Amino acid sequence: MDLNKPLLMIPGPVPLHPRVLKAMSRPMINHRGPEFARIFDECVSILKNVFQTNNDVLVLSGSGTAGMEASVSNVTRGDNVVTIVNGKFGERFKEIVALYGNPIPVEYEWGSHIELDDVEDALEKGASAVTMVHNETSVGIVNPAEEVGELARKYDALFIMDGISSIGGNEVPVDKWGVDLAILGSQKCLAVPPGLAAISVSERAWERMENVKPPYYFDLKVHQKSASKGQTPYTPAIPLFFALHEALRLVCEEGLSTRVKRHERCADAVRMAMNAMGLELFPRLNKLSRYSNTVTAVKMPEGIAYKQLRDGINNRGVLIAGGQAHLKGKIFRIGHMGNVSAKEILTTIEALGSTLVEHGVKAEGGVAAAEQVLKTKGI
Amino acid sequence: MDLNKPLLMIPGPVPLHPRVLKAMSRPMINHRGPEFARIFDECVSILKNVFQTNNDVLVLSGSGTAGMEASVSNVTRGDNVVTIVNGKFGERFKEIVALYGNPIPVEYEWGSHIELDDVEDALEKGASAVTMVHNETSVGIVNPAEEVGELARKYDALFIMDGISSIGGNEVPVDKWGVDLAILGSQKCLAVPPGLAAISVSERAWERMENVKPPYYFDLKVHQKSASKGQTPYTPAIPLFFALHEALRLVCEEGLSTRVKRHERCADAVRMAMNAMGLELFPRLNKLSRYSNTVTAVKMPEGIAYKQLRDGINNRGVLIAGGQAHLKGKIFRIGHMGNVSAKEILTTIEALGSTLVEHGVKAEGGVAAAEQVLKTKGI
Repeated sequence: MDLNKPLLMIPGPVPLHPRVLKAMSRPMINHRGPEFARIFDECVSILKNVFQTNNDVLVLSGSGTAGMEASVSNVTRGDNVVTIVNGKFGERFKEIVALYGNPIPVEYEWGSHIELDDVEDALEKGASAVTMVHNETSVGIVNPAEEVGELARKYDALFIMDGISSIGGNEVPVDKWGVDLAILGSQKCLAVPPGLAAISVSERAWERMENVKPPYYFDLKVHQKSASKGQTPYTPAIPLFFALHEALRLVCEEGLSTRVKRHERCADAVRMAMNAMGLELFPRLNKLSRYSNTVTAVKMPEGIAYKQLRDGINNRGVLIAGGQAHLKGKIFRIGHMGNVSAKEILTTIEALGSTLVEHGVKAEGGVAAAEQVLKTKGI
Repeated sequence: MDLNKPLLMIPGPVPLHPRVLKAMSRPMINHRGPEFARIFDECVSILKNVFQTNNDVLVLSGSGTAGMEASVSNVTRGDNVVTIVNGKFGERFKEIVALYGNPIPVEYEWGSHIELDDVEDALEKGASAVTMVHNETSVGIVNPAEEVGELARKYDALFIMDGISSIGGNEVPVDKWGVDLAILGSQKCLAVPPGLAAISVSERAWERMENVKPPYYFDLKVHQKSASKGQTPYTPAIPLFFALHEALRLVCEEGLSTRVKRHERCADAVRMAMNAMGLELFPRLNKLSRYSNTVTAVKMPEGIAYKQLRDGINNRGVLIAGGQAHLKGKIFRIGHMGNVSAKEILTTIEALGSTLVEHGVKAEGGVAAAEQVLKTKGI
């Protein structure tokens, strides 16, 4: 890796493993030949384990947003869709739903937990689907997928879940939770470059697709037909498939549950460090929600502006992210997903702490607190 | 390059330059930072030269088909659209148009030239746009873009042109021809991996976009807003932008007109070789159409099946393509785009000739004929 680069501690894209980087410099192959089919099939097979599903899994050449739109547009034709919003990506789901159907929004302040009663009230109005972001990247909160999945089934609605920044860094048992369409983004927990979206599709979801005309590029029925031959209907982003394939091998080598635990512990270490430094986490939780394994959102402390914080940390070789939309300047976010380990966490906390201190903000003890967690829990 | 790979002489993806391969193994960067913006802006700036346009040029993370759908869906809302079809990709345009508007097809047998009178008859019915594939990859014919552009302007219709496998290997003066939306695919003449589509958008096209609601991922107005900050609205396929950037530098080093001439001469050499070997080219031309610079489609000779031909050539280290849909088994196609030079052309002709001879098909003199062209014209 190029040591001149800042360490990317943003919520995607994330630093890549050297094997994944190397995979992308392979010469092109025919996307209609047996070698591509083998890579494609192996990717799908491992992805099914990562999604913990027996459902079909499709891989589209496009961003996570493309995956969200593909999911919504294939099962919605003017229907009512309950759309849960407590952050930027929930909002995006609502905007996408509005293009294909009639959103019944269940909205909260960004960063606030959701209430199941509100979701149920909305479902009682009659809806064909519910959309929810599992790990709301914009605010670092994890929404209650299992419970919302249960409600969706109770009301015979499809459960469409953005798992873009959660699958691979959290236990996401898609089948157990009854997620009909779950979406993963390549550049998050799997530590692949951006550019691919994977979607699991349940039998219920396939049934709802009859007579729906999604955008041409996103027609999942057409993707499924090609996938049965180890192909994609339109020319795939071949180097990203090489990268995905190698990254999924790394997931197998590590083991999914070990990988999830590593994410949990890194997140835990970050939160303990924030706590020790007297910084306040942004999400407002209830007992069904929890802090994210993959991104920690923190309120900006008094005495320093976000730009000063970011630049100070950047000068120390680490890149963090700010708040989005109306949260600009109000919060900062540390991504800890993909290949993240103790080293990256400690480097980041050190850079954060010393930047704060430099600006006269009292913020000691972060590294020690993080180290304590990482040592005890063994990362 | 891996010498175990067959030489890809299919109409995309094409072999990549080592510098382009290397560019993709760069570590990830923040897609919202200044470095990405610089790469993005430089790509757009060089692409404008390649498109010979002062129009805006946008780059989407998706295949050429994504680019076709983005173009149609942003300017069509139930309108009549004249769709010219003389091959598989013209057919695809028609299918996409049918999702967003009402296609008025101007259809020909695949591989046959088109007639301007037919296009004008269709335009007289009243249409908001005309779609045409410039270089119809499926049959190796180049359709008369300048003339169709003129007709489109005469009837105040937008001209939407698939230049996916033509731009960068042909002179495509987008502004001179009045192309309102021109689409390029990364894996063709630019010799980038697949996964990016570039679209030029004229002022007339921007005006038509008011009140049209395209798919979320394809909303060109949103892309344009981000592009003005050197960004994409949704996370871009970063390694493909690295590759595009490096490939466009190579285009600058070679010079666009030299690059186009190289494509012309390689195509000429292939056609002369086919002629010498007694093979018949597939397209049926009139005086306004011409053979493709980037892919040559040839009728299967008597005495050998396509599979035998493909396998024989493949055993000699070269991969060619067959016919698509109803042309399967009827034609074979040689791609000659991107970094193609005399060496690849001669290797391919040699492999083709010796495979034919092995199967008892009389096919001598191909290499000599190609060499003659290449030597005389200096590739």
